Amino acid sequence: MANELEARPATLTASFADRVAETVERKRSQLVVGLDPRPELLPLELRGATHFQRAAAAEACERFCRGIIDAVAPYVVGVKPQLAYFEALGADGMAALEQLCAYARTAGLLVLVDGKRGDIGSTARAYAEAYLEEREGAPPLADALTVNPYLGRDSLEPFLAACRRSGSGIFCLVKTSNSGSADIQDVTLSDGRPLWHHVAELVDHWGEELIGERGLSSVGAVVGATSPRAIGEARRLLPRSILLLPGVGAQGASPADVARAFTSGPASALVPVSRAILYAFRTEAEDWRSAAAQAAAHLRREVWAASGW
Amino acid sequence: MANELEARPATLTASFADRVAETVERKRSQLVVGLDPRPELLPLELRGATHFQRAAAAEACERFCRGIIDAVAPYVVGVKPQLAYFEALGADGMAALEQLCAYARTAGLLVLVDGKRGDIGSTARAYAEAYLEEREGAPPLADALTVNPYLGRDSLEPFLAACRRSGSGIFCLVKTSNSGSADIQDVTLSDGRPLWHHVAELVDHWGEELIGERGLSSVGAVVGATSPRAIGEARRLLPRSILLLPGVGAQGASPADVARAFTSGPASALVPVSRAILYAFRTEAEDWRSAAAQAAAHLRREVWAASGW
Repeated sequence: MANELEARPATLTASFADRVAETVERKRSQLVVGLDPRPELLPLELRGATHFQRAAAAEACERFCRGIIDAVAPYVVGVKPQLAYFEALGADGMAALEQLCAYARTAGLLVLVDGKRGDIGSTARAYAEAYLEEREGAPPLADALTVNPYLGRDSLEPFLAACRRSGSGIFCLVKTSNSGSADIQDVTLSDGRPLWHHVAELVDHWGEELIGERGLSSVGAVVGATSPRAIGEARRLLPRSILLLPGVGAQGASPADVARAFTSGPASALVPVSRAILYAFRTEAEDWRSAAAQAAAHLRREVWAASGW
Repeated sequence: MANELEARPATLTASFADRVAETVERKRSQLVVGLDPRPELLPLELRGATHFQRAAAAEACERFCRGIIDAVAPYVVGVKPQLAYFEALGADGMAALEQLCAYARTAGLLVLVDGKRGDIGSTARAYAEAYLEEREGAPPLADALTVNPYLGRDSLEPFLAACRRSGSGIFCLVKTSNSGSADIQDVTLSDGRPLWHHVAELVDHWGEELIGERGLSSVGAVVGATSPRAIGEARRLLPRSILLLPGVGAQGASPADVARAFTSGPASALVPVSRAILYAFRTEAEDWRSAAAQAAAHLRREVWAASGW
């Protein structure tokens, strides 16, 4: 029987953080394309008569995302499928997700599943199993998963164990890009700091045991790009975490807004962009694949320039 | 064309909170059975040769959960499927989940989907669509969904809108049953309170617009049964919320520990129990259906007695 480890690509045995570093430097890109497929926003040629029929809608979404992956693969380091849009299509949507994760991996892209999961002990283990553990001999569905830290360290332990075992990663929510994030993340603690600073320190601590050969941790943090000041503070509190910075594009942040995130290295932050790439064809009046490729090429250049590397 | 509202059962047009109140009083039960199916824990007769084959494992889990629903339906008011265990079985698991939600509804049970979802704007809308909105003319998959409040009010607005539209409900995480909940939920704010008190007040406020005819809100709260003191404090801070109290059974809390939750009425709290019912056969050396029925009957009596109604 062949040695399974030897049969797998070398990149899979490195830590998540090291795979990110290698991919970013090789492609000179920190851009990640968000896969947020909405049946009602698909190009007409794909939408057809699929309205309200979930199996057909899931198939159309899968074809769209495959086309997007083909179009943007030269410009991005990974894909970020947003689970909610696949769950909204039921079991058919989840089957499409599984296909797309495998397809993106074949295209040499990292797969960052955006699920913001979080639960206690045995349940968190089931989530880790679903996304970060090997499945029937196949590699994990995702390279990394976004998680919600509200339940505390023990709720994340099964994810950390999966990271140690399978070389995957997590991104913990720290300071999100929406205005309502102030309701809880910004409340003032007894020592005068906002809550999210405390969460950032916890995440930094949780990540200590998962620092790769390039000095970055496989325990990353989600920080909204809509607040450049928060990015600077997060960078200081989380010097070794890879920051995932949503908010560029449809949510209003620009590539220049994320510049401060990159002081820990060219791979120390990733910029996911969804709508501004996926649906570029709706404003550019061009073939959807070309519009996505052009938007991705442009954003990749702008982010790389802003990163100062 | 028939009026769709008239064609639906009357209970579906009432608010979630009113449906809970009606069901609790009719069945004299506040017990909810958690559906946490683990292939490796299933009875031998169902497990068979399904090991590691996900399609077969999903089918075995579905058969097990159907048997459990049949066995415990007289004693419980609802089921609480834990999404993680279905997601761990991939698309096949999600198909099983859809079947089970429909089956539980046919058995007259409320369906509380435990997903602890939470995300920003358009993504939260997709989650609400997946679980709380009507789907191709069919009723919503769930009567209620557990959600994580870390992202703040605007992240929950799409769920609240779904509650208003379809008469569904949500349960916001407030104070969870795990020891790690202290890491974030218990940090001290500048006014001396623990963070979770602040979250409880937000949830109480968010629920004001969804108070039903029986005085209870369709915006509920998750409070761990492992801390009776926290239950008393949560009851005071959330006088109109239905409290969902996990932790009884395998996690160590007893029915007596939840007594303080019921001062707002017999339906003002629900007690979900998973392992102590599902896997009762493993310690009782009995047929798995009978063991589950007996465990549920016993817990229902104990919780009802503790509630003082």
